[in-house]
Amino acid sequence: MATEMKTKESSVEDSTLKLRPLEKEDFKKGYLELLSQLTQVGEITEKQFNETFDVINSNKSSQVIYVIESTTEKKIVATGTLLAEQKFIHGCGKCGHIEDVVVDNSYRGKHFGQRIISKLVEIAKADGKIYKVILDCNDKNIEFYKKCGFDWKGNEMALYFN
Amino acid sequence: MATEMKTKESSVEDSTLKLRPLEKEDFKKGYLELLSQLTQVGEITEKQFNETFDVINSNKSSQVIYVIESTTEKKIVATGTLLAEQKFIHGCGKCGHIEDVVVDNSYRGKHFGQRIISKLVEIAKADGKIYKVILDCNDKNIEFYKKCGFDWKGNEMALYFN
Repeated sequence: MATEMKTKESSVEDSTLKLRPLEKEDFKKGYLELLSQLTQVGEITEKQFNETFDVINSNKSSQVIYVIESTTEKKIVATGTLLAEQKFIHGCGKCGHIEDVVVDNSYRGKHFGQRIISKLVEIAKADGKIYKVILDCNDKNIEFYKKCGFDWKGNEMALYFN
Repeated sequence: MATEMKTKESSVEDSTLKLRPLEKEDFKKGYLELLSQLTQVGEITEKQFNETFDVINSNKSSQVIYVIESTTEKKIVATGTLLAEQKFIHGCGKCGHIEDVVVDNSYRGKHFGQRIISKLVEIAKADGKIYKVILDCNDKNIEFYKKCGFDWKGNEMALYFN
C-alpha cells in the first residue's frame, strides 16, 4: 500500500505511562499476559512472538498495535490493534478494524481503554483512505464504545473451527 | 505470511456458472456494478481498479475475493471476500473476516450467497492457522448466516468519517 500508517509515541498525562506502538521488547513486559486477560493465548515462545511481530510489522500500512506501558513497572497495561482492509467499495477506500482491546485488571477505571481507542481512531483518520472504523464487542461494552463516538451498526456472526 | 491461501476454480452445478477468484477482467464483467448493489462504490477507472487489485493480490495469504460468473452473460453475479488477520492470541493464530458478500438482484434465491460463504469458509479452514471466521450483518441476514453454520457472537460498532 502507498504509505505506512503514521505511528508515533505520545505521552499519556502521567509521565510514568507511555502510549506507543508495540515493540519486540514487550514480550518481556507482559504483553501476552495482558492479552490472556482477553482470551486464550497459549504458550508462545519469544521466537514465535518475534516471527509474528515481523509478519504484522512487515506491512505497517495495514496493521498497527498500540500499547500503554507503565514505565515504572516496565509492564504493558493496555493495548489495541488497528487493521486497515483495502476495499473496492467507497472509491477503493479502506475499512479500519479495531481488534484485541484490553486493559489490565489492576488499571481499569483510568480511561486507558478510551486512550487506546482514541489513538487508533486518530491514526485511521490520518490515513486518509479509511472511511470508517468498526469493531465487535459484547453487550456490556456497547456504552463504552458509544462514549468513544461509535454507534451500533449490526450483528457479529462467528463460526469457530476449534 | 508463510503460504498463500489456496484458491482454485470450482464448478457450480450449472455449467454456465463459474465460482473462481476475482480477475482483472472482471472490471469489464460488472464486478463494481454488483458491489454497488451492496453500498456506495463511486466512479472507479480501470486503472484504479487494477491498482487496487494488485494491492489486494500482492498478499494472497491475507485476502482473497471470490466471484460467481455467469459465463453465458459474461457477468459477475455474486461475490465475497475473505481477509485473514494475523494475531498473537490463539497461539499466533489468524482470524478470518468475511466481507462484502453480495448476490445480484436477478440471481437471488439460487443459493449463490451460500456457495460463496461455503467456499470462503473452506479456504479459511484449509489455511490451518485460522481459528474462527467472523462477519458483520444486519438483522435480516442473521438467519441466512445461521444456515451457513454461524452463530450470533456480539455487536458491530461503527464510526464513520464521512
